[in-house]
Amino acid sequence: MIEIPLVLIGYGNVGKAFLKLVLEKKENIRLRYDLGLEVVSVLRRRRGCFCEEGISLPEWEEPAWEAGLDLGRVMERSDPGVVVECAASSSQTGQPGLGLMRAAFAAGWHVVTADKGPLISFLPELRSLARGKDLRLQISGATAAALPTLDTALVSLAGAEIESFEGILNGTSNYILMRMEEGLDFANALAEAQDKGIAEPDPTLDVGGWDTAAKVLLLTNSLMEQDLGMEDVTVRGITDIPVPMSEEAAEKGKCIKLLGRMKREGSTLRLEVKPEILEAGHPLFPVNGTEKGITFQTDSMGRISVIGGRSDPRGAAAALLKDLINIYR
Amino acid sequence: MIEIPLVLIGYGNVGKAFLKLVLEKKENIRLRYDLGLEVVSVLRRRRGCFCEEGISLPEWEEPAWEAGLDLGRVMERSDPGVVVECAASSSQTGQPGLGLMRAAFAAGWHVVTADKGPLISFLPELRSLARGKDLRLQISGATAAALPTLDTALVSLAGAEIESFEGILNGTSNYILMRMEEGLDFANALAEAQDKGIAEPDPTLDVGGWDTAAKVLLLTNSLMEQDLGMEDVTVRGITDIPVPMSEEAAEKGKCIKLLGRMKREGSTLRLEVKPEILEAGHPLFPVNGTEKGITFQTDSMGRISVIGGRSDPRGAAAALLKDLINIYR
Repeated sequence: MIEIPLVLIGYGNVGKAFLKLVLEKKENIRLRYDLGLEVVSVLRRRRGCFCEEGISLPEWEEPAWEAGLDLGRVMERSDPGVVVECAASSSQTGQPGLGLMRAAFAAGWHVVTADKGPLISFLPELRSLARGKDLRLQISGATAAALPTLDTALVSLAGAEIESFEGILNGTSNYILMRMEEGLDFANALAEAQDKGIAEPDPTLDVGGWDTAAKVLLLTNSLMEQDLGMEDVTVRGITDIPVPMSEEAAEKGKCIKLLGRMKREGSTLRLEVKPEILEAGHPLFPVNGTEKGITFQTDSMGRISVIGGRSDPRGAAAALLKDLINIYR
Repeated sequence: MIEIPLVLIGYGNVGKAFLKLVLEKKENIRLRYDLGLEVVSVLRRRRGCFCEEGISLPEWEEPAWEAGLDLGRVMERSDPGVVVECAASSSQTGQPGLGLMRAAFAAGWHVVTADKGPLISFLPELRSLARGKDLRLQISGATAAALPTLDTALVSLAGAEIESFEGILNGTSNYILMRMEEGLDFANALAEAQDKGIAEPDPTLDVGGWDTAAKVLLLTNSLMEQDLGMEDVTVRGITDIPVPMSEEAAEKGKCIKLLGRMKREGSTLRLEVKPEILEAGHPLFPVNGTEKGITFQTDSMGRISVIGGRSDPRGAAAALLKDLINIYR
């Protein structure tokens, strides 16, 4: 059995769900995959906890925090394993995640992340740091989480050329669009989504299409080995869809979805995000509520779509756990 | 770069499509995956060809056949690589594929297969032979081919428990059901499918549900490490669906699909194949014509569906190629 020390960075909803999931599934993972997962440290802003034998169930809800504990000091105390990065970094500077990931690779740790911030502008650098030390950087948690986007493309479509993909990659805007089809205007649909905890207090990233754009960018940079930036994505969100348009789509048995798309055009790649009308036969048509979905068009395998995946902290935690297990298989 | 000698067994539609696809994509695969694929031999019943440097484009359509050449003699002449098995073996005895796979593993070759025959009753034995020699047996080609079923479950759902799955796994019966919704009776829909080359002259395996049952069985035995047999699958095909029932489903905006299903019930697994009515919101609802699809229900990732995948010899060949590439990654 391989013993794997884990350091969890970030203790928000996803971080907590990850810790809980690992503790819940630890024995099962030992049996099925012959992997011994132990969360030896949880790090938050300016404090953390460390426990060499691994944090266990009774204590997980309120670990004994140690002021000033940071990743550097934790990595000195533990054999290398995997850093699970659930911080919320800036999409401009990539910090604090960027510095943490660089430090992790320098010290010989793999990284599994749900934090888009450092990846938006620094994915090629981070990937090359990882490769240089034969380490892995796994980013499913940042590319639609429990919906398998990268896995599908890298494993299931191995050997095929991806000519284009289009995806419903943001659950919040998909929920709002569904409610607009049912007759609400944008402001009311948004208010309802905020009430239900689906939309954030500042919903700009979601409804403005920026979260979708970031995912299209990360998928393209990962799958096509590109170094494109957010400025290469044309972005239109869902804030200005007239109600009659979405009602009309619904009446005609169609629907409006916010699609993120990558398309090869000769030797260039076109990346865009915009609301589009889908016909009933489209594979992404049944993607409702906070669900997500993606469709790949390939040369030799035809069209392949993946739909679903739990869209909450537990789903995101499960995506981190999957990435972690797949490092060692 | 890793040089990989390939022996192709079977030169029917899928075998031919595989050879063509490898020759077409060889350079690309060398660049993207650092793998050097060379088909050194094609074996048919009682004859074959061998070419140490690999078969190349001008000659592939009509290789120089050598009477009596068999796998044993080819493996003596080549370094070990991958046997690509596209024979059509008996689902009772598993032969000739069973003997060929046993020989391949004994000689240190990996096996990638599209041949369900040997897997139906002998998958556990074959898997254990492969493991004992640190070799791989890859069976995507036999479990819905270009539709990623096994990959999705093994890679994308790693760490999650599969509580159930249901799939449209047979393109022929799905095509016939679609035409029946449009008003044809079973006999006419079948005749049309035969005319178009979608259904075989003897369609029993497809329309009787047996092909779907074999795939449900292989998926279950692979994913759950079981040793179940065809006798453990309850099978009902599509031959006795009354036309009014399928027309009515279509009028009410529903449809009838032949579903293969695995469901955990306590500690036992229930396997069945039968036609069922699906509502419009079901993720497999838009799976039309010869398309396929599968939905997994999991504990931690929710429901994940995969739909599509080219349903012809080129799609099957692409699935074999994918399995082959994934052995070396």
